Order: sequence, then structure tokens, then C-alpha cells
Amino acid sequence: MDISEVRVLAAGTALPGPPIDNAALARRFGMDGAWEQWIAAFVGTDSRHLAVDLDTGEVRSSLSELGALAAERALRGAALRPADIDVLVLGTSTPEMLMPATVNVVADRLGINDVPTYQLQSGCAGAVQALDVARGMLANGARNALVIGGEVCAKHFDLSVDLKDLSPAELVNVVLFGDGAGAAVLTADPVEGVPAVRRVLNRLTGQGREPGQSVQWFGLADRASAAAAVKEDYKAIEESVPLMAAEIVKELLADTGWDATDVDYLLPPQLSGRMTARIVEELGLAAAEEVSCVRETANTGNALPFFQFERALAEMTTGDRALCVAVESSKWIKAGIALECV
Amino acid sequence: MDISEVRVLAAGTALPGPPIDNAALARRFGMDGAWEQWIAAFVGTDSRHLAVDLDTGEVRSSLSELGALAAERALRGAALRPADIDVLVLGTSTPEMLMPATVNVVADRLGINDVPTYQLQSGCAGAVQALDVARGMLANGARNALVIGGEVCAKHFDLSVDLKDLSPAELVNVVLFGDGAGAAVLTADPVEGVPAVRRVLNRLTGQGREPGQSVQWFGLADRASAAAAVKEDYKAIEESVPLMAAEIVKELLADTGWDATDVDYLLPPQLSGRMTARIVEELGLAAAEEVSCVRETANTGNALPFFQFERALAEMTTGDRALCVAVESSKWIKAGIALECV
Repeated sequence: MDISEVRVLAAGTALPGPPIDNAALARRFGMDGAWEQWIAAFVGTDSRHLAVDLDTGEVRSSLSELGALAAERALRGAALRPADIDVLVLGTSTPEMLMPATVNVVADRLGINDVPTYQLQSGCAGAVQALDVARGMLANGARNALVIGGEVCAKHFDLSVDLKDLSPAELVNVVLFGDGAGAAVLTADPVEGVPAVRRVLNRLTGQGREPGQSVQWFGLADRASAAAAVKEDYKAIEESVPLMAAEIVKELLADTGWDATDVDYLLPPQLSGRMTARIVEELGLAAAEEVSCVRETANTGNALPFFQFERALAEMTTGDRALCVAVESSKWIKAGIALECV
Repeated sequence: MDISEVRVLAAGTALPGPPIDNAALARRFGMDGAWEQWIAAFVGTDSRHLAVDLDTGEVRSSLSELGALAAERALRGAALRPADIDVLVLGTSTPEMLMPATVNVVADRLGINDVPTYQLQSGCAGAVQALDVARGMLANGARNALVIGGEVCAKHFDLSVDLKDLSPAELVNVVLFGDGAGAAVLTADPVEGVPAVRRVLNRLTGQGREPGQSVQWFGLADRASAAAAVKEDYKAIEESVPLMAAEIVKELLADTGWDATDVDYLLPPQLSGRMTARIVEELGLAAAEEVSCVRETANTGNALPFFQFERALAEMTTGDRALCVAVESSKWIKAGIALECV
């Protein structure tokens, strides 16, 4: 089949626990009102959901649970059963374990078996990459694909840390990220009234550049050396991501032949509430409705575009066009999707 | 293009340091001659290469270094430059970091940029999965793909452990695995005298089954709880892998229409020297030459099929047929490749 005729049938999402607002986070870590104001002013994220219970330290949701829940919701939306799925792709930067791959644990929970499964180790471009792999499999003969993205950062979320000891660059990690999972069902069937994936952009552009973000894992042999597991070059991210987002939009418009005024929905990068606002302003797609959820969910990495998909799919009608833009700052990947409701 | 016309142009491999034989391993861990005999009798692996220096504890090779080195060798074999590569896929169960994905660090080392990159979190079926993703991209319009697989287990390799305290199930991990990387260059060009990838089998079959292997990672928040990071159900692996290998061969023969006597080269699963010998005997492909390297390199996971490819490619001539068989025991994945030299 023509790869540009692959359809997104439905999307589903899942979040752990209740939303945790900035005041609750400040209380838990003994921070004051000034910190809360700093989050509001410089990050612009109001709340997030976390797999770890801040009071007890208990991890109450796993990535495979959330991924399976989101997938069930997407399957229900698509009116398909697990047995209808021919290929399963999961993207995450926080796998549950190294082995088995979380995608196969999710498959087990869903009752999906006897199909190829792939798990991508990926950051904020991961949802686009996972969708790209699935779309390729549909173009090569599969009929229905389930694509999942999610993060559970509990292993990184050290409740014993004293935030007053952290530099601003480390502090930002505590408020920037949230846990969650999302899923979408793709089909090769020529269904009408749903978006076709006209174009996927997925391109490494980081040659010779330092990573904007690095995240370590530890094994039995090196866990004693665990000093700083997560590093952000927030300044580089702040400078580069808006420029890269503009280049992604430009390229997607050129490739599809669409004008800026043709775009009805914009699904922008969701690094933080504040940066998303800046990016949307710079992209200048005045006719497009912004589809953002970062203020409520924070940055959920591989999950986030699925939250945006879920909202966009509920609104899009035949002829509507949407651009989804994602930037991975760990090694500077440009990613994006052009959707057109058929 | 027809997906069954994708070619393997060349393969390359890289190993860290000198081979470490069982006597050296026994000396380092204060084990006696009886342990050495146990390795020879029950595992059948003579040596392995390790990224960690057993005397100093220094980690002297990284996955991105080994992956880039293997890739350079494969590119040289294919007479292609990094700029000729349109898509890069890496499979590993031991990523260097969680972010950036190791595939993008390898790309940087090689000078590959402006292309899609994918990193699969995968076990012993990972080389097949990575090759499958790359093959799909070639069928959808890319021209040349670079596929890499590798492992560096240094984070798991705890030199402070007293082997006398370990159960046989834990002890086996110390001798079973080795570090290394491999790579292959695939092309959509109709080159003659190289193997075409006629068929790829990649199927999860683990529904309702306990994992045969599980491997944890730790973050800042849970590193104190690091008790047993790697668990093997060696009995389940020993029982299931030969059966699954036989089913993979049967299915590949059925799908290609080949007879057992048509197979000139067999690239069997490489879990250990002893189990490979058992599997080869059971498969009964009497006309096929076995291509095995596990006795020298031990089980190098995602790297191993590339070591077998390198050897097979040096021997195959027009008309020759080969079956590559891989089994992932973490969640029971059947994988295999049917090659035919054109």
C-alpha cells in the first residue's frame, strides 16, 4: 500500500494517581513559595502525575501497566481486539527493566502474541519514531499496528534528596517531567473520517554537538558511583528547540505542499508550559489551534504526542490538517508528523 | 522495491581486549580447577572478550566505540562511506546510557547525520529485529542501511563478588556472556554475488510464560535495593530453546519453499558452546555447514549473528543458502533469517 495512506484510527492515554500541583511538590520537599513562583514563571507547568507516591515512596504504577491501559483505551476507540494487531511498537526512555523489553510485558498484559514487537530506546522524538516504524510495517503488508509511548521516572525520582542542595539545572528536572503512557492504533485499511499520516520526519541532526540531556543507568557493578544520573543543558535546549521546531514545520509544509494557513491544528513540542508558549508564538501558524497538555501533565516524553493525538482526533473532521512537532534534545533529533483527515 | 531482494553487502565486527580463557577467569575469582571443568562440561565456552579489565577494574571499551569500529569495518567491506547510509539501526540489551540513545553516539563517531536512527532494546533476537526494521526502510525507499548490534556488560560485571557465594544459576552468568559488537550494511541495490534477505521471522511467543531471563537497571532512587540484577531460568532456557530453534527452521523452510537439504550454512543460536552443539544435532540439517563462534566469543547477545554473518559472507557463493536462527529467552521470541546468495 501507499505509505501516505496509513491511518490513525484512535488514541488512548493513561496517567498514574491524582495530579500533583506545584504547591504539593513544594510542601513535600520543604520548599517555599518563592520556589513555586519560580516554577510558574520559568517552567510554566502547573501539575504532573507521578508513578511514585510522594508520601510513602511506594511505586504504584509501572510502565507496562500504564502502557497496557493506554493501549486498551486506544483499541476500544478503534473497535479492535488485541488479536487484530499485527505489530506492536513501544518507545520509551525509561524501560521497566532492561530484559524482558517492556513491550513484551505489555503484550502479555494485553493478550497480544505471535506478532513482531519492537521497543525503541528514545526521548522526546520517540513517539514519532515508533509511529514511523509501525507505519513502515503497514506499508510492507501488516494490517493493524499498535504504537505505545510512555515514561515512568520513579527510578530517577530520589525522594531523599534535599532540593536546597541542587543547582537550578538539577532542580528543573524535579518539576519538568511527569509519568504517563499513550497509545495509537494505526491501520492500512482505507477508513474514512480519520487522519492519514501523510508524512513523517525523523532525522538526527546532532553531529559534533554535545548532548542537551544525558541520563545514566546503573548496574550492580557501578551503582556506588551513582552521582548525577540526569544532566540537562537547559540553556542549549532553550536556544535550540524553538529554532529546530521552526525548521521542522518548514520542512513538513514543503514536503506536503501545504501553506501555513492550511494547518488547522498544531501539536507543538511539550518541554515545559513556558517554552511551548514561546515556540507556538514563533511558529506563526496563526490559523492553527494549539493542542497542548504540558501544563497539566508536564513533559511525559514518549507519551506526550499521544495525549495531543487523543485531543486532536476528537476534533478533526474531513479535510482538517494537523502538524505534530517533536524535538529530542539528548542528541538533537528533528521529528514531526503531518496528518490529514480523509 | 521487493522486500525479498534486499541484500547484505558486508559485515564487520569488533571485540574488546584479548580473549579471556576459563583458567584466567578462575584465577581472577579464586576458583579452582573443578570450576574450570564445570564450565567446559556444562557450558562449553572456552573464552570471551570483556570491556572491563579484570585486573584493574577499568572499563576500557564502550558500546559506542565497539559499535562504531564494527560499523567502520562493515562499511569498508561494502565499499561505502558514512554519507552513503540512509538509515541506522542499533540493537542492544546494554545501552551505554539511557539518553542519548547509543545509536546516536555511534552516528556521531562515524560522521553519520541527517538520517533516521533507531535503537532497539532487545536480547538475543535483537540483531534479527534490527535487520528487520532496516530491511523495511529499504523496501520503503531508503537505499543503504547500517545495522549494528552489540553488548558491553561492564555495568553488570561486579568484580567484588565472591563467586563461592553464588548459586549455579547466578554463576552461569559470569561465564556465559562476552562483550562485542557487529554490524552489517544492507542495500536496496540489485548487487550480485551477495546474499539477499529472502525472509525474516520475528515473533513474540511468550504469552503467559514467565521470563527465562530478566535484567534490571537502577537509578538514583533505587540503587540501594540492587540485590540480584540478572536472573536466569537456565532450566527453562535449556528445555525451550532447542524446541523453538527447530520450529524456526521448520517455518523458514516452509516460507521459502526450501528443503532441509538445500541449506548450505546454518547459523544456530549461540547461548553456549554446549547448547549450540545440542541444537545443531537436533536440527538435523546434515548438508549445512555450521557457522558458530560462541566457544571463542561466548554469548555476545545482539552482536553474535553479525559474527556469524561475517564468516558466512566470506564463504557464500551464488546459489548458496543460509539459515540464521536466534531465540530470545527473556520473553520467548522466535527469530530467524533466510539468506540466498544471488
